[in-house]
Amino acid sequence: MSKGTLFIVSAPSGAGKTSLLKRLREEMDRLVISVSHTTRPIRPGEVDGRDYHFVSRQVFERMIAEGAFLEYARVFDHYYGTARQPVLDELERGYDVILEIDWQGARQIREKLPECRSIFILPPSREVLEQRLRRRGQDSEETIARRMRDAKAEIAHYDEYDFLVVNDDFDQALSALKSIIVADRLRLSRQREALADLLRQLLA
Amino acid sequence: MSKGTLFIVSAPSGAGKTSLLKRLREEMDRLVISVSHTTRPIRPGEVDGRDYHFVSRQVFERMIAEGAFLEYARVFDHYYGTARQPVLDELERGYDVILEIDWQGARQIREKLPECRSIFILPPSREVLEQRLRRRGQDSEETIARRMRDAKAEIAHYDEYDFLVVNDDFDQALSALKSIIVADRLRLSRQREALADLLRQLLA
Repeated sequence: MSKGTLFIVSAPSGAGKTSLLKRLREEMDRLVISVSHTTRPIRPGEVDGRDYHFVSRQVFERMIAEGAFLEYARVFDHYYGTARQPVLDELERGYDVILEIDWQGARQIREKLPECRSIFILPPSREVLEQRLRRRGQDSEETIARRMRDAKAEIAHYDEYDFLVVNDDFDQALSALKSIIVADRLRLSRQREALADLLRQLLA
Repeated sequence: MSKGTLFIVSAPSGAGKTSLLKRLREEMDRLVISVSHTTRPIRPGEVDGRDYHFVSRQVFERMIAEGAFLEYARVFDHYYGTARQPVLDELERGYDVILEIDWQGARQIREKLPECRSIFILPPSREVLEQRLRRRGQDSEETIARRMRDAKAEIAHYDEYDFLVVNDDFDQALSALKSIIVADRLRLSRQREALADLLRQLLA
C-alpha cells in the first residue's frame, strides 16, 4: 500500500472550511481529518475525541516536552496542537490526512513534513466574507471588525500554499478539493505501488 | 490571464486514450487537443486540420529545418510531429493543451518544456488489452502479437510520467483525467493571476 499524503487546509474564519471538509470526508474514502488536542474547556454539544481531544494543561505541556506535536500554538490562555503519531499512523496505512490549521501551524508542518500539500480556501468577496461573519450570531460591530481584521491577516499568507480554492459555490469548491486529492493519488509515486501487480502483469 | 499547462498523454494502443481525450475535450472548457502534422496520406473519413495537418514531405522537412516542431518522429516512411507555435499560442491565452504522443515524443517535449505534466494511461489487464487490440478488426495472430509487443514496449516507459491512470471503467478514467487538469488549474501559480482582483479586494 502506498503511503498517504498530508494535506494542510487553511482559511480565514467565514470561508466555509469546516463545512467543506465535513462533506469531503463523508464523500471520499481513505481520508481522515485530524482531530486536534486542546486545553480549552469542552463546550455544550462538543464530543471529546470528535471535535477535539480535550486534555489538561499538564498533559499538553508534557506532550510538548516529549515532542509529541507536529505543530502547536498557544492562543490566549489555551493550547491547540496536532499530535504527531496518529497522523503518521494514518499516512502509513495509505490514508490521506487533512489538518485544519492556520498559517502558523502550516509553517511548522512544512518544516517537519515538506512533502505535505497545502490548500488555502478563500471567500468569493469581501462582502460575502463579512456577511458570513455576521450570520454567526448577534455580535457587536467591534467583534465583526476584529474578525475581519483576523481574516485579512490569515488571507495575507495565501501565497505560502500550493493550491487556492475559492468557496463561492459550495459544490464547486467541494469538487475542487476532491480534484486536488484525487490528482494526488494518481501521481506516479503513489500509483507505482498501488498498481504494482498490474504493472508486473503488463510487462511480463 | 494565467498561462495554460501543456499535458502529454501517452498510452499503448488499446488503452482507450483517443476516446477518453475526445470526451475530455467535449466536457471541459479552455482545453485543446493538439493536432499533429504528418506526411502520411489522408485516409477515407479523415479531415485535414481535424485528424492531422496533412502536409508534403517537402513541407515537413522544411519545418524541421526551421525548428518548427516541438517533437517529431519518422515512423517507417512517414513523419509525424507537433508544431511549436500553435501550442505556445494556446498556452499563452490560458488554454491547457494536450499532446497525444508516445514516450519518445514525450522525452523531446520534457526537454524543451520541462514545466509540462505527463500522464500515462494503462489498460486494466493484459487480457483486456488483448481483447481491445483484437476488437479492432479481422487481424492475423501475427498482427495481434506485434501489437502486444508494441504495447508492452510503450508501457515499459510508464515511470517517466507524472501521473498514471488506469482505464478500467471509462467514466472513472475520464473523471481521473479531469481531476488532474482541474487540480493543476488550482495551483498557486495559476490562481495568483486568475484571482488577482479578488486577492487585491480581500487584502485592501
